[in-house]
Amino acid sequence: MAGSGEKGSELPLQECLQAAVQVALDAGQIIREALRIEKRVQTKSSAADLVTETDQLVEKLIISTLHTKFPSHRFIGEESVAAGDKCILTDDPTWIIDPIDGTCNFVHGAPVVAVSIGLAVNKELELGVIYNCVKEKLYTGRRGHGAFCNGEKLQASKQQDISKALILTELGSIREPTAVRMLFNNMEKLISVQAHGIRIIGSAALDLCHVATGDVEAFYQFGLHCWDMAAAAVIVREAGGILIDTAGGPLDLMSRRVVAAGTSQLAQRIARELEPVAYERDDSTEEAIDSRSK
Amino acid sequence: MAGSGEKGSELPLQECLQAAVQVALDAGQIIREALRIEKRVQTKSSAADLVTETDQLVEKLIISTLHTKFPSHRFIGEESVAAGDKCILTDDPTWIIDPIDGTCNFVHGAPVVAVSIGLAVNKELELGVIYNCVKEKLYTGRRGHGAFCNGEKLQASKQQDISKALILTELGSIREPTAVRMLFNNMEKLISVQAHGIRIIGSAALDLCHVATGDVEAFYQFGLHCWDMAAAAVIVREAGGILIDTAGGPLDLMSRRVVAAGTSQLAQRIARELEPVAYERDDSTEEAIDSRSK
Repeated sequence: MAGSGEKGSELPLQECLQAAVQVALDAGQIIREALRIEKRVQTKSSAADLVTETDQLVEKLIISTLHTKFPSHRFIGEESVAAGDKCILTDDPTWIIDPIDGTCNFVHGAPVVAVSIGLAVNKELELGVIYNCVKEKLYTGRRGHGAFCNGEKLQASKQQDISKALILTELGSIREPTAVRMLFNNMEKLISVQAHGIRIIGSAALDLCHVATGDVEAFYQFGLHCWDMAAAAVIVREAGGILIDTAGGPLDLMSRRVVAAGTSQLAQRIARELEPVAYERDDSTEEAIDSRSK
Repeated sequence: MAGSGEKGSELPLQECLQAAVQVALDAGQIIREALRIEKRVQTKSSAADLVTETDQLVEKLIISTLHTKFPSHRFIGEESVAAGDKCILTDDPTWIIDPIDGTCNFVHGAPVVAVSIGLAVNKELELGVIYNCVKEKLYTGRRGHGAFCNGEKLQASKQQDISKALILTELGSIREPTAVRMLFNNMEKLISVQAHGIRIIGSAALDLCHVATGDVEAFYQFGLHCWDMAAAAVIVREAGGILIDTAGGPLDLMSRRVVAAGTSQLAQRIARELEPVAYERDDSTEEAIDSRSK
């Protein structure tokens, strides 16, 4: 099958997965090195939404490597979109890339960071690679072929009961007071219905990997981007987990909201508690880009 | 000095430190093993405040080992206090022990757990040992002799500016609605004054170790216990950090509240934002024990 074609079922997906793994490992090496040195930081949309030279360097490495191998493929990358590229998913094979998920941690030297590379074909997520480069944990998933961490098969939790669920979430970089209030109100609601605990670790991609491994039972977030969840979505699904919209319907990758859990029952139970926090969609073109650079 | 005496400066503190390190490593081995197997769980004061057989086993191991070496010393341990022992600090050498800090993580199989062993003499904290047994990171501190992680000297952050501070906190196990609301209100206030980010990882002892390493700039919590911070307090101070009361005064180990940071300026800045959340003191004897078992 390798090299046979470019679209749909003809795409050499195993070759794509191998290429993504290799470039994720290479990117991880750069990030590990950068964590050791002083970092020059520039502010993007707020004090919490930082971009470092390493972010940009790593994204360029990933895109140029994959572009050389797969010249007809498209790319959506966090830094490219921040620089003005459109964030539109077409039917073409499209790599969706977060060079460093957990940038805020990274800037502080906190070691919870990951490279995230997903591939969508005909708007369907086909494979995902996430590399926790500090712990050297490589998570991979391919639709219909299972999810793995360093070669070990992953299985999400089978917990349905929210009172036995440890739930991850993120605040993201928004600092608008009403939205911040709502983010905390949602956490408070989950605690009030006896969620076992809430954790915030600073990386949505790794939050989702923890759902895939069963270390935690669920994750939800408002305000994340498609590149935070594209790769992880495949890994969670292939580990037997589920991703839905925060209103309970099917996941919309561009909607900036998600609930993930090991079971549909738990995902729906969490969704029932959540009040929506409004974010502009990833694919709302000019307006979306404008709002990110405010 | 070793074996020369039992109190104050006559105490063989280096021998005490070595004994604490050895028993922490032994305890860590048991915990790592237990993380691999199914855990039978019993509820203590709420669904979030769990005690496992391993907690109790590990505390017994630590206390019996140290008691054999130092028969005149006293002990304050999380599980012993839960079982009805008094939580009173006297001038006698007193070991303050949390067999598994991060029990809620532990129960879910999430690997953020640590053994914590501190020693107070004349009510002054002299040494602390914290063992992150999953990552195999051993943090040690002795008053006047520095703090180390796996032999590497620790230095807390020198950041004074809250807008550049990543801040850790914990919800703890309280589920009383007014208190829960206040815990989230405090987080919201810190975000509203532009704290760079907030993280919740589920272990106060490891939160404080992250302050000591400089991975994060600060930590605060209402509702933690003396065994969550006794060992870590020495490690933070010896890394150049500071611990104060949430109202800005000196730390009171039994007060169930703390702000820790790399700098006094940042600790005071955080304290200024915090609204107090009332918890019964650790040393309020019968009433305190009653309230914990509610």
